[in-house]
Amino acid sequence: MPKKVVTLGEIMLRLSTPDFKRFVQADSFDVTYGGGEANVSAAICNYGENGVFVSKVPDNPIGQSAINHLRRYGVDTQFIARGGDRLGIYFLETGASMRASQVVYDRAGASIAEVDASEFDWDKIFDGADWFHTTGITPALSDKSAALTEAALKAAKAKGITTSIDLNYRKKLWSKEKARQIMTNLCQYVDVCIGNEEDADTTLGFKAEGTDITKGELNLEGYKSVFQQMKEKFGFKYIASTLRESHSASDNGWSALVYDGNEFYHTRQYEVRIVDRVGSGDSFASGFIYGLVTNMPLNQAAEFGVAASALKHTIPGDLNHATRKEVMDLVKGDASGRVQR
Amino acid sequence: MPKKVVTLGEIMLRLSTPDFKRFVQADSFDVTYGGGEANVSAAICNYGENGVFVSKVPDNPIGQSAINHLRRYGVDTQFIARGGDRLGIYFLETGASMRASQVVYDRAGASIAEVDASEFDWDKIFDGADWFHTTGITPALSDKSAALTEAALKAAKAKGITTSIDLNYRKKLWSKEKARQIMTNLCQYVDVCIGNEEDADTTLGFKAEGTDITKGELNLEGYKSVFQQMKEKFGFKYIASTLRESHSASDNGWSALVYDGNEFYHTRQYEVRIVDRVGSGDSFASGFIYGLVTNMPLNQAAEFGVAASALKHTIPGDLNHATRKEVMDLVKGDASGRVQR
Amino acid sequence: MPKKVVTLGEIMLRLSTPDFKRFVQADSFDVTYGGGEANVSAAICNYGENGVFVSKVPDNPIGQSAINHLRRYGVDTQFIARGGDRLGIYFLETGASMRASQVVYDRAGASIAEVDASEFDWDKIFDGADWFHTTGITPALSDKSAALTEAALKAAKAKGITTSIDLNYRKKLWSKEKARQIMTNLCQYVDVCIGNEEDADTTLGFKAEGTDITKGELNLEGYKSVFQQMKEKFGFKYIASTLRESHSASDNGWSALVYDGNEFYHTRQYEVRIVDRVGSGDSFASGFIYGLVTNMPLNQAAEFGVAASALKHTIPGDLNHATRKEVMDLVKGDASGRVQR
Amino acid sequence: MPKKVVTLGEIMLRLSTPDFKRFVQADSFDVTYGGGEANVSAAICNYGENGVFVSKVPDNPIGQSAINHLRRYGVDTQFIARGGDRLGIYFLETGASMRASQVVYDRAGASIAEVDASEFDWDKIFDGADWFHTTGITPALSDKSAALTEAALKAAKAKGITTSIDLNYRKKLWSKEKARQIMTNLCQYVDVCIGNEEDADTTLGFKAEGTDITKGELNLEGYKSVFQQMKEKFGFKYIASTLRESHSASDNGWSALVYDGNEFYHTRQYEVRIVDRVGSGDSFASGFIYGLVTNMPLNQAAEFGVAASALKHTIPGDLNHATRKEVMDLVKGDASGRVQR
Amino acid sequence: MPKKVVTLGEIMLRLSTPDFKRFVQADSFDVTYGGGEANVSAAICNYGENGVFVSKVPDNPIGQSAINHLRRYGVDTQFIARGGDRLGIYFLETGASMRASQVVYDRAGASIAEVDASEFDWDKIFDGADWFHTTGITPALSDKSAALTEAALKAAKAKGITTSIDLNYRKKLWSKEKARQIMTNLCQYVDVCIGNEEDADTTLGFKAEGTDITKGELNLEGYKSVFQQMKEKFGFKYIASTLRESHSASDNGWSALVYDGNEFYHTRQYEVRIVDRVGSGDSFASGFIYGLVTNMPLNQAAEFGVAASALKHTIPGDLNHATRKEVMDLVKGDASGRVQR
Amino acid sequence: MPKKVVTLGEIMLRLSTPDFKRFVQADSFDVTYGGGEANVSAAICNYGENGVFVSKVPDNPIGQSAINHLRRYGVDTQFIARGGDRLGIYFLETGASMRASQVVYDRAGASIAEVDASEFDWDKIFDGADWFHTTGITPALSDKSAALTEAALKAAKAKGITTSIDLNYRKKLWSKEKARQIMTNLCQYVDVCIGNEEDADTTLGFKAEGTDITKGELNLEGYKSVFQQMKEKFGFKYIASTLRESHSASDNGWSALVYDGNEFYHTRQYEVRIVDRVGSGDSFASGFIYGLVTNMPLNQAAEFGVAASALKHTIPGDLNHATRKEVMDLVKGDASGRVQR
Repeated sequence: MPKKVVTLGEIMLRLSTPDFKRFVQADSFDVTYGGGEANVSAAICNYGENGVFVSKVPDNPIGQSAINHLRRYGVDTQFIARGGDRLGIYFLETGASMRASQVVYDRAGASIAEVDASEFDWDKIFDGADWFHTTGITPALSDKSAALTEAALKAAKAKGITTSIDLNYRKKLWSKEKARQIMTNLCQYVDVCIGNEEDADTTLGFKAEGTDITKGELNLEGYKSVFQQMKEKFGFKYIASTLRESHSASDNGWSALVYDGNEFYHTRQYEVRIVDRVGSGDSFASGFIYGLVTNMPLNQAAEFGVAASALKHTIPGDLNHATRKEVMDLVKGDASGRVQR
Repeated sequence: MPKKVVTLGEIMLRLSTPDFKRFVQADSFDVTYGGGEANVSAAICNYGENGVFVSKVPDNPIGQSAINHLRRYGVDTQFIARGGDRLGIYFLETGASMRASQVVYDRAGASIAEVDASEFDWDKIFDGADWFHTTGITPALSDKSAALTEAALKAAKAKGITTSIDLNYRKKLWSKEKARQIMTNLCQYVDVCIGNEEDADTTLGFKAEGTDITKGELNLEGYKSVFQQMKEKFGFKYIASTLRESHSASDNGWSALVYDGNEFYHTRQYEVRIVDRVGSGDSFASGFIYGLVTNMPLNQAAEFGVAASALKHTIPGDLNHATRKEVMDLVKGDASGRVQR
Repeated sequence: MPKKVVTLGEIMLRLSTPDFKRFVQADSFDVTYGGGEANVSAAICNYGENGVFVSKVPDNPIGQSAINHLRRYGVDTQFIARGGDRLGIYFLETGASMRASQVVYDRAGASIAEVDASEFDWDKIFDGADWFHTTGITPALSDKSAALTEAALKAAKAKGITTSIDLNYRKKLWSKEKARQIMTNLCQYVDVCIGNEEDADTTLGFKAEGTDITKGELNLEGYKSVFQQMKEKFGFKYIASTLRESHSASDNGWSALVYDGNEFYHTRQYEVRIVDRVGSGDSFASGFIYGLVTNMPLNQAAEFGVAASALKHTIPGDLNHATRKEVMDLVKGDASGRVQR
Repeated sequence: MPKKVVTLGEIMLRLSTPDFKRFVQADSFDVTYGGGEANVSAAICNYGENGVFVSKVPDNPIGQSAINHLRRYGVDTQFIARGGDRLGIYFLETGASMRASQVVYDRAGASIAEVDASEFDWDKIFDGADWFHTTGITPALSDKSAALTEAALKAAKAKGITTSIDLNYRKKLWSKEKARQIMTNLCQYVDVCIGNEEDADTTLGFKAEGTDITKGELNLEGYKSVFQQMKEKFGFKYIASTLRESHSASDNGWSALVYDGNEFYHTRQYEVRIVDRVGSGDSFASGFIYGLVTNMPLNQAAEFGVAASALKHTIPGDLNHATRKEVMDLVKGDASGRVQR
Repeated sequence: MPKKVVTLGEIMLRLSTPDFKRFVQADSFDVTYGGGEANVSAAICNYGENGVFVSKVPDNPIGQSAINHLRRYGVDTQFIARGGDRLGIYFLETGASMRASQVVYDRAGASIAEVDASEFDWDKIFDGADWFHTTGITPALSDKSAALTEAALKAAKAKGITTSIDLNYRKKLWSKEKARQIMTNLCQYVDVCIGNEEDADTTLGFKAEGTDITKGELNLEGYKSVFQQMKEKFGFKYIASTLRESHSASDNGWSALVYDGNEFYHTRQYEVRIVDRVGSGDSFASGFIYGLVTNMPLNQAAEFGVAASALKHTIPGDLNHATRKEVMDLVKGDASGRVQR
Repeated sequence: MPKKVVTLGEIMLRLSTPDFKRFVQADSFDVTYGGGEANVSAAICNYGENGVFVSKVPDNPIGQSAINHLRRYGVDTQFIARGGDRLGIYFLETGASMRASQVVYDRAGASIAEVDASEFDWDKIFDGADWFHTTGITPALSDKSAALTEAALKAAKAKGITTSIDLNYRKKLWSKEKARQIMTNLCQYVDVCIGNEEDADTTLGFKAEGTDITKGELNLEGYKSVFQQMKEKFGFKYIASTLRESHSASDNGWSALVYDGNEFYHTRQYEVRIVDRVGSGDSFASGFIYGLVTNMPLNQAAEFGVAASALKHTIPGDLNHATRKEVMDLVKGDASGRVQR
């Protein structure tokens, strides 16, 4: 019986330039659909579990195409509301070497930002659910979507469902101050908290001294201190963060640190040659959630998450199309990349 | 000395599916940029005159790409303001046979709709100008852009510049009532009025009895009656309309009717096999304006306009890339399509 | 409550050359997935009903991709078995003018041909079903798949579900003699029989004199005689056939003839400019079934079917991506192909 | 034992814009290789005979790619000389409807124009040959290539090989006067003369009164008069011309007229929907030569030629990829374009 | 006078996803044709020698396209038989970093597997031949193709032609046991044996202790022991193996070890950034054969082979399009990759 | 007030194979336009200054497309002459790893090579100009273009405009001897001299002992000696050279050395993963010129230039589409390649 993992958030139209072209050179865009929470749903399905994605899209062919994209990869889209004005868009230009990838967001006025909490029947949505996941992007979209996020978290907690959040601070969506106020409130309903280096500070106000993210140097001690503060304040069951050493837009070091209140566990570190790093945080989250919801020990769940996201870096698009078996093979150690015939 | 033709309006990112694909099938979009008024500017440049396009685009790579697209075809973009939130977008799915082309607009919140009239120095813009052109789309975008349109028309009239408007009613942008109110006011500053079959009614309230646009049958008598009413009410110098017989999404009959208050002139009718009919109205407008601004007699200007737009139907994208010589050759009668070596 | 329509058959990988290229010129293939019965399922979903597709695909990424393709368009794929050696393939080269489209089949050894009837639980599959549909291709694939088809038809009849078959004779799969023997047996379980011009003869042995299918001339009287013989022998509730006038690979006349034992009804005839005619028979079948299962009168169901398939001719790929509304608009008469904004 | 047909001429790199784009819109070019004489060689191979192509290409990867293109389709390229500066290029923009296709030649300085007659061993080349073919383009390239053409024709005649020429006047390569002088000399070595409407006049000075090629109206009587003059002056065994009615860049009528000194034969006329009409004259020539070299009666050879070239109009690229069987099927009358499964 | 190298084997249609896409993401496939033995033939031609490829392909456009692909690169295809049911296919998904490339074979029932030895006239095929090469894949396809391989090897030996085999074990085609039985028999006719790390064990039963191929560590001593065993048992003139250090799917170390019964020679090791590594073993084989057949000393032939295959890793498709000069330049030491103008 | 930088030179059509394909594999070419001097103009515009490009292109759609390409990126093209026979072409095959990129030039007979100095009005062109730049390619094209280069340099000097030249020796265009004679003459009018490792020797005869450019090792001392000789002989104000360590076609070390007669400054060295290295020298020149013309100190101008060209290596096409801000961010040290949202 597959586990039912519900996620709530935005799905966007992603328009990316092909072949390392810059925006000003592009005469076509590659089209996919993605978003932090949708990406988690699709990966959950990919591992054989039941991913349910809750959102709102416009009642037009672009909204339909977003739904179709998720259905293609097995996501249960029956609870996605239809209506509102538009699907959010993001434009992506993939970088290389010292040229960073660029993301241009065009998400104002998206249907999910104009949503009303009453459009969703959480009783029905959470029926039989094992896990609820969302990110710090959803409440940042608008006051309405913040209210929706709170309603969903409350409903999940009321049903005894495990909840997780990926902090994911987006500075173009809200101020640090507003983020801290709302996220601090939401975190009281959260069991598992995931966040990368910057988010703990901007979103919750915890500072990991000595880490300069533009340098890509890791400061594990700083992280540990932050995790302990977070545990203390919110009582999270687990706290996890990916650790990126950004050598360049083409090559990154990649690992994760997890904490259960007692022990810290730092996973294997992968050196990845990047094809597409968008969605790599989501692929960690989904792998980690998959591990926990299928009852792996924390360490193994973290290894599953980081191996999954190492593979994601090699796959174009937002979604992680690595299978459970492929992730497990990498966890077990075969990173030789020999042809599989 | 080339003629200077100023146009005011919106430029949008156009995302179209390739190879007759429907939206739900598309994995890439072809990218160009266009819009009713921008299309006129580019064609004017193509004929060797000086096309100046006035608009506002966001200060990001997507806005820059729109400007670059116009520059590529020679448009003077120096007066385009930078700022605001986003570039309007339209999605296009090209139809065939009995399947109509579909356009999905996503233009709310575009920079040009949030523009302030004070951002433009009309004295400088109109310095040395021979013609000013806009369409009924610009004032429909927002109250701000309606105010901007009025300011521009007033400034043009004050400088003694010939003005033209293409009525171009867009039902998703405003109601008939609002359109009539605002357009009736604007038309007092207009010398040359261009409109297709539906616009005279929806925008100005003149009814051409007996024309059912879904049938594609022409009712020239109805048109003449409408033109006479328009002449009477607004005193336009010239009134023109394209006449489309829509046999299917693949084949159309195409001609134009013009009126100078004395005589009606119905141009040659072309039977066109359609490659891309978006922008065909604009290509008539630009050809017609080109004819008039270079002092062709009315009949010849109309023939130039309709030949230009017949060619436009065979060219992908919004812009008309037919040259002056190509249009003139068609006007003179060579529609045989023999290879030019 | 949507109607549940179950179909049984093969889904194949379709590899087609782009841009009218011949096979020997191709350096890439466009990839979709389709097949007579799968195409019906997808269209049923497209109209808002519940299409369930039953088949078998290999347990590899190509089989998974076939499933994903159907899921993308809403098909319920839960009953598709996994296993066997390969997915059938067909290669398509789209013709134009006097050059016919070419199909090269490579379907021997496909998983669905090696299937065992015991792999499917028809009780569960048909639970709540309103309709069962298959084609003459499925039993032609192998003796095993013929046995499977019979088992499915029997189970459907036992449950009181309406059954339909599209005769679809494929001369490369079996001889006329074998086809007639097996199809004559299967037809005893069939309520609604659909067949194009050649199939009634090759598959069931009924001859419509005077129709030369390479000429594209219609012989309605011959059809009527055949329909009456079919009615007499098998007692079908309804008999339907599409009628194609093949002017060239680019232009076809297209209509349908239906018969309920009392009256013949010949639908409106469409002149279609062809984008992709593969799957047009299936699009009639699915439209016709949709009409009947949603309780349209026979004539209206036939008009829905033929309008749906007229639209299909304009859409690339096997599947019909026309919506219910688009089909209804065409049935109501708007074939002008004017841009929908 | 296949017939050996030797052709002499230029092979060029062909760069064409995709999807009806104009040159100024193109961001990629489709790449093939072709030329009047090379196209004939490839078609001869396609029908199962032995096509030998004689030319000169530069000793660089572009020249190699041209050879590879011919080898791909079976042409014997062993006698192609290597050296010189460059491969000639032509740019192609495919028209539609009233927009004509445009060809921009960039062939000055091509290796074949700088060739020396001594680079070829005609004894070896013509060993066992049944036919020699060239066109009026080859001698037009330069004085050197004119000398080469004469040398080849003389050598062929000396060996008793049937010779043919396609007049193919290209006004950008030489003047009428020079063309007439050189072609008149060459024609003394020619058995079979092929020319379209304009070439008889420009190249040989024979006038078919009353034909206006921009109108596309046929004047069969004028042709007959010209053929008789040609027969009288040069004693050609056969004279043939294709007859094009250019309704538009998308639709042409297409037939041929042949003459053996006694009777005129006008073939079936095809109405073709055009995919790519470049090389259609060459496809007639190669089909006609194929017919004659395999001993078809004149009328049948002409029907084969015109059916072959009707099919060519539907195939992208310079080469005719129709097979012998496909041409024969069309000759026999099946132009219905029904799918071949 | 070029050397004549005959190879026997399968040619397959290769369908690969573009741009690092996974199978489930692909909407088009890049199309080429290849196979271990065909790849050797094409490379031999590329170096200026005469490569003759012997195989069987279906008599349909897909089979013809395979032949055309080889002809394009100069391969002599006159001895390829036509008939049977289908061309074998393999699907390729190119990996990156820790994600391995995936190959899905769909080759059952291929024409070459259903071949009868009597379809080939070895006397004629081997007339004037200098070398015969095949691989362990050919006999693995079916008992018929194993019989064919033996017949060819016997015929070659009878004519005194040097023979080589590339062991190339494919576990999906046959068991170790069957492979060993058949290959042991075939090896008695072989002069030069090539095999990578795994094949010596699986195919011939020789074990190189201490090499874990998923680690990519080299164990030269183990290899030497295996080579000595092979020499002893079969009396091969030369034994060679490529040595791959698979750091990841993107970066490999690459060298070769050769043995003549007296001395071992380990070539220069290249660190390659991989574009497409399929066919790299074949590119070593063809380079090595080229060296030996043109009388290079063993060491130099090995260096030629390994440099050739280093270059192959940078070229998309199965075939090695490096020229003799490019390989020699690399052998001589210029690996700087500076632009060649 | 933006600085006005005038450049003189050739613009070529660039045809490159996609996806690392070799020429013999290509079925399409990517199309852009570029050339050493045009590339500088476009970059100058990209940084916000006024780039004026002076050249001559044919009066056909290919010439027009070249102009359009420059206009797209803001270049002032008003002084480009129209006429002559053709646009020069270069074919590019992008290498990887040990396979070098290949450039095939086809530029003989280009319009700019047939230019007459009198076609340009230097008074008008240099009106208000701050800088004039050209390269050693322009005078190498023909005697006429050498004369034109001298005329331009003289006119610039007469107006007191700073002049620069990039030595850029092209061995296929002229001999060392001729290059030295003409370049020695031209250098008397030059203020700033830029040249890479080989050019100082071939073009001006200065030898940097101990540098083997195929090894990629740097010999800074040798450079310094050469710079001192150059300073002494020509009195250049500044001398600059990029320093490339060519590890492979995929990875290069990249820095620059500059000299003002007193001090040598060696910039930061970047390790670049290459997307497209064509135009990297030009991107250094344009960045360096930008720095100097906007009054940066020499060291900072050199850092700007080398950072700009490091970024260029990651951008497809000839032009550098890095913005001023992006270059400055890299100069300031952020080479982490983190996603910019």
